[in-house]
Amino acid sequence: MATLTVWKFDNPTSAGEALDKLESLQKQQLIEIQDAAVVEWQPGEKEPKTRQAVSLTGPGALGGAFWGMLFGLLFFMPFFGMAVGAVLGAFAGRYSDYGIDDNFIKSVRAKVTEGTSALFLLTVTGSAAADKLQDELKGKMGSLIESNLTNVQEAKLREAFGEQKTAWQIGPRTLPPPDGASDFMRDAIAITPQPDPAKVQIEPQSEAEWLAVIAQLDEGKLDMAREISKQFSVSVEHDMIEGVNVYHVTPSEIDPRLEDKLFVHTHGGAFVLNGGEVCTLEAIVIAHLAKVRVLSIDYRMPPLHPAPTARNDVLSVYQHLLKTRPARSVAMGGSSGGANLTMGLVQHLIELGIDVPGALFLGTPGADMSKTGDSWYINDGIDRNLVTYDGFVAACIRLYANGRDLKDTLVSPLYGDFHGFPPTLLITGTRDLLLSATARTHIKLHQAGVVADILVYDGTAHADYVGVLGSPESDHAFAELKAFLLQHLQ
Amino acid sequence: MATLTVWKFDNPTSAGEALDKLESLQKQQLIEIQDAAVVEWQPGEKEPKTRQAVSLTGPGALGGAFWGMLFGLLFFMPFFGMAVGAVLGAFAGRYSDYGIDDNFIKSVRAKVTEGTSALFLLTVTGSAAADKLQDELKGKMGSLIESNLTNVQEAKLREAFGEQKTAWQIGPRTLPPPDGASDFMRDAIAITPQPDPAKVQIEPQSEAEWLAVIAQLDEGKLDMAREISKQFSVSVEHDMIEGVNVYHVTPSEIDPRLEDKLFVHTHGGAFVLNGGEVCTLEAIVIAHLAKVRVLSIDYRMPPLHPAPTARNDVLSVYQHLLKTRPARSVAMGGSSGGANLTMGLVQHLIELGIDVPGALFLGTPGADMSKTGDSWYINDGIDRNLVTYDGFVAACIRLYANGRDLKDTLVSPLYGDFHGFPPTLLITGTRDLLLSATARTHIKLHQAGVVADILVYDGTAHADYVGVLGSPESDHAFAELKAFLLQHLQ
Repeated sequence: MATLTVWKFDNPTSAGEALDKLESLQKQQLIEIQDAAVVEWQPGEKEPKTRQAVSLTGPGALGGAFWGMLFGLLFFMPFFGMAVGAVLGAFAGRYSDYGIDDNFIKSVRAKVTEGTSALFLLTVTGSAAADKLQDELKGKMGSLIESNLTNVQEAKLREAFGEQKTAWQIGPRTLPPPDGASDFMRDAIAITPQPDPAKVQIEPQSEAEWLAVIAQLDEGKLDMAREISKQFSVSVEHDMIEGVNVYHVTPSEIDPRLEDKLFVHTHGGAFVLNGGEVCTLEAIVIAHLAKVRVLSIDYRMPPLHPAPTARNDVLSVYQHLLKTRPARSVAMGGSSGGANLTMGLVQHLIELGIDVPGALFLGTPGADMSKTGDSWYINDGIDRNLVTYDGFVAACIRLYANGRDLKDTLVSPLYGDFHGFPPTLLITGTRDLLLSATARTHIKLHQAGVVADILVYDGTAHADYVGVLGSPESDHAFAELKAFLLQHLQ
Repeated sequence: MATLTVWKFDNPTSAGEALDKLESLQKQQLIEIQDAAVVEWQPGEKEPKTRQAVSLTGPGALGGAFWGMLFGLLFFMPFFGMAVGAVLGAFAGRYSDYGIDDNFIKSVRAKVTEGTSALFLLTVTGSAAADKLQDELKGKMGSLIESNLTNVQEAKLREAFGEQKTAWQIGPRTLPPPDGASDFMRDAIAITPQPDPAKVQIEPQSEAEWLAVIAQLDEGKLDMAREISKQFSVSVEHDMIEGVNVYHVTPSEIDPRLEDKLFVHTHGGAFVLNGGEVCTLEAIVIAHLAKVRVLSIDYRMPPLHPAPTARNDVLSVYQHLLKTRPARSVAMGGSSGGANLTMGLVQHLIELGIDVPGALFLGTPGADMSKTGDSWYINDGIDRNLVTYDGFVAACIRLYANGRDLKDTLVSPLYGDFHGFPPTLLITGTRDLLLSATARTHIKLHQAGVVADILVYDGTAHADYVGVLGSPESDHAFAELKAFLLQHLQ
């Protein structure tokens, strides 16, 4: 059985000092508590600040979720009244099940006010911890507001708030073909065999194995790229810029307003696929549908060239271009890993003080490679193109990262800074494993004051807007890209 | 065992005529085929047109998905080369498993060209259907390109393309607390008990039962609304406009640039909840965070007043407002069912030739109430607020629709027209049951040439931006709303 006690202090700092003392006593094993946190309310502030005792959180700790929401209830008043499920859950009512009732809440609210502080202690009932602390503080302990938890209440509390219990086990479900997509897209998806994570458990163990797998996965794509360029009457010419292989991809018809503009294309492929002329696959589509010249960069890739070679290749080409044209006349982007590179490059340009492009296209960007974000979990086995994080995708990321932390901004530019980014168009879909990465990038751009639009196509997986050519979604996406270039390039 | 035969005609119309003949023979039961489609390529066109024989699709039919993708492969060349999963699936290779090999594809491509047409027939092998058709057409049948399917190939084809096989069975998964959200939001969600569809199987059977359930679900919300208005120093005053109950919701601080602007609030609650002064819950938040005057409409609701009473109440209030202020000085919106009403009202205003508001706010709009769209399925049991379509939500929709088809634009305005809509801000999240509805509305607005922005907050469920006050997501959402009003109201 546990007891939650609250000790109020008449100034904003003493509770924090008591917590420091507590941590020191706990380290010396002179006192035993389960969890603790403080609330400090400086004079003149609208709200108190709160912090949890990091070093105190042992096996009995309820963790940040418990404290965060208790303080929310007490001081920040979150409310859950708008929606059905939340009402059924009756937020405030739940706390009362745990022995934290209306009287407790009212009492704490009345006593812990501006200019005061409070120490929240969770201890085994009957523990002398608080007494010991009082002794140590030599009478400087605050006044007591107490709430005793029964065993049942404590169990409920642990069930609801114990950190290890918070993952949800989501049951099986039937997913029909996407009737919210266009008929064309729905039919294209309906004929796809259900994605099977077991089939992408490919983890090459040596450079030779990697090269063999890459060759196998890229097989046939060059013919496909050439067939499409022929069908669209798009010309593709190889060139070298600053020692980097590039392809000039020129449509049969260029929009007169984009005549002097250039789209610099960084191709996707999980940092390992689509090398060589295959890099032009998406570039041909962009050139044809957005009616703009494209320069597609065949940057060097793992296993021979891990990060940051790819980004540096793109940087070399970009800097070369700036010798003869203004940055604002250049758009840059691509899908998946290509969007990751574009993001990383722009962050690097800003660090270096080099002019950024006039507009960016981030198609389903691999912005966060660390398996953070909802869609890695929710859309696992639902995204027919990427299928799952755990397997080939994760292997590619590790190969590219080359020992770096997966939240290093060179690997996951989402964790970098977005201030100074040019206008950015993002695209994703409801089945995209990178839906969360795309949505988070969009919000971070907005938070940095950047003009950023996101398009979310219902029913579509990773890069379906380029994978299902001729679909209304694909046509719309590239029409939006064209309009975006017209609006923002100068 | 089935045979797919292709008959080529040397002009663009004869295949269609043959198909018409075929349908007539099939109706008279003089001929038996399983499925058929035609390709018609008019001179001067870049691509052929295709159509499937609607009336022929019996139990043996493979359906639109099969034909659509076969024709795509043959004539429109969709490609799937950009992503891992698709490559492993090897699109073109799959067809070869089904007896549609390279030779077949090359042969059809070579023969069916501009100015010709072709009839594609799927028959039981050995059937005399094609012979009979030839007899009927008196020698005007085209030349033959044939592909015999083995039993194994036919089975594979049916497995991949049979319409009844296309739903995917998605397995169970673990969903951790949303680490892509802010810590505040993540912790708020982490303490929520896992949503349980079984707990929202509430389907009142009579007016009295409905009123009792509504009273129960709305219990405590009035205190909550008043507590929040007090905390935010927002004043709430009841009024009647054109016989409709409304509330003037005035923040303590109004942005000087919004001094003469008004936000007309249509509250959410699945068309039945949050009536009376409770309607001000979200309005108080909007007033406080966007620093704008709000008029919240307590429109009449089921069970006493099904559609279209609510919309007509909102219309009456809006028309009254236009007597004393320009439409462009008014913003309108709300969340969930409230966003549905705002969408429906604007469509109605355009029909009536009445000026539309200057800007709209559609928070997680209930735009499509027919269980169409991915997120009803993918986020079932994942959205902690709405939980599931099948249960209380569906019951509310049926009650409101009052016998109307759920795709009637009065019930699901997504199926209506969006031309002439004012600039619109939409908000959703990756766990939102209405993610698809929000995303589809956003795309439809863009397709209608409307300025529309969508914000997708990772990890958040239906209306969490208003449910978790004080979270960075909530603060950001309403800061964006304020900026949107400043930009678009006049």
